[in-house]
Amino acid sequence: MQVELKSDERIDQLYRDDIQIIQSPSVFSFSLDAVLLANFAEVKKASKTKIVDLCSGNGAVGLFLSKKTAGHVTMVEIQSRLAEMAMRSIQLNDLTDRYDVYNMPLKDALTKINADSIDNIVCNPPYFEDLPSSKKNPNEHLALARHELTTSLEEVLQVSQKMLKMNGKLFLVHRPDRLPEILTKLVKNRLAPKRIQFAHSHAGDEANMVLIEAIKDGKPNGTRILPPIVIYEGLEYSKAIKELLYGNSTD
Amino acid sequence: MQVELKSDERIDQLYRDDIQIIQSPSVFSFSLDAVLLANFAEVKKASKTKIVDLCSGNGAVGLFLSKKTAGHVTMVEIQSRLAEMAMRSIQLNDLTDRYDVYNMPLKDALTKINADSIDNIVCNPPYFEDLPSSKKNPNEHLALARHELTTSLEEVLQVSQKMLKMNGKLFLVHRPDRLPEILTKLVKNRLAPKRIQFAHSHAGDEANMVLIEAIKDGKPNGTRILPPIVIYEGLEYSKAIKELLYGNSTD
Repeated sequence: MQVELKSDERIDQLYRDDIQIIQSPSVFSFSLDAVLLANFAEVKKASKTKIVDLCSGNGAVGLFLSKKTAGHVTMVEIQSRLAEMAMRSIQLNDLTDRYDVYNMPLKDALTKINADSIDNIVCNPPYFEDLPSSKKNPNEHLALARHELTTSLEEVLQVSQKMLKMNGKLFLVHRPDRLPEILTKLVKNRLAPKRIQFAHSHAGDEANMVLIEAIKDGKPNGTRILPPIVIYEGLEYSKAIKELLYGNSTD
Repeated sequence: MQVELKSDERIDQLYRDDIQIIQSPSVFSFSLDAVLLANFAEVKKASKTKIVDLCSGNGAVGLFLSKKTAGHVTMVEIQSRLAEMAMRSIQLNDLTDRYDVYNMPLKDALTKINADSIDNIVCNPPYFEDLPSSKKNPNEHLALARHELTTSLEEVLQVSQKMLKMNGKLFLVHRPDRLPEILTKLVKNRLAPKRIQFAHSHAGDEANMVLIEAIKDGKPNGTRILPPIVIYEGLEYSKAIKELLYGNSTD
């Protein structure tokens, strides 16, 4: 399918899954976080599955799930420019029959999506707290995507707790420097952290990304810490990351 | 110095630091957990430093710290047989001038150690909850060391919070399957988790140990996830572990 591109837009491709995403550096571009989250998310496969992508941006995470599930994917994004890009990417990948986009704040999505109705939620939220001291990007689109200006971790978790079925799963990517807060707030919202995986730029570096699976009303404890992801070997992507991006590694 | 050994005892040596520990498999033997915790703990060096080893067992962690600090180390251990072994190991290593052992429950140690007086606490606590369903070792010494029969994570953290000076540091080794509970309880007790490191048996395995540094009344967040420790390469200890145990690796 052909879709129209605006002047600052380009189409990027996730080769492994043959998914095309409309990108624009002037509003938001998906990054490795989205690829890692989509890979980490063990979403249900059946066509009756209901999945929500909260803070979907240009729709990358939800689109990357399209080969992992035959279910219905609903994206929720507050920025109209990004929601509209996501919609065109859905058309570009011929997924309009089972994908839709709500351009609204997270809380308003609760008026559209029934409580206790969702099997899986994926979320790549704004990472940074809106502190008086925090430097924000002067580009409003990028500031909203990075800083908790219109939503917060607490709100993401409250909305997730409401939307998910009992034992439904939330898959989240975030920054490890907020790990104690993230786990504390998950537990408080009765979302039991079950699988955690850290990503490190290089093998000897501290982690700069954390992937978390939490189960609604799951039992506390029994948390599994997966083997870490190493992103680079020297100046190149590691073999594991190349496989994620390009399919079979070229090594 | 010569000390007397009982029939079931042997002397093990941490070669890198030339520390000798009286061990007995029938009551308790230190394991890699103790070596990793002592290595992870960034204790203060000065002779005025006050360090407490909570749940010290046969004293391995505290003894392994002897080359990292010139400070005073107090061990607290409820089991008299283990406390007495720790005392003999202190004699064996000629450390009686700056080491002592309190054979008492953790809470009672608060009557001996002033509140807000301790710079650093190390703790290798019982890992397993005392659940009705949990299988305990029929050997009481081993059951007490492994299961939360006489103390609990909550008590360890409450006692640590009381003993530590403001900005004093607690260094803890525990099981990653309890990570959400550990971080939640640390935060609740105003012990801010600052450094976390996971240990994996092999590079591709899930973590089976977690090391945590928490600061009393420290700022929340800013948590650092260190590069992981890999314990084995094939059937042998990894180079990093060999260095910890034997000093310069034999590779």
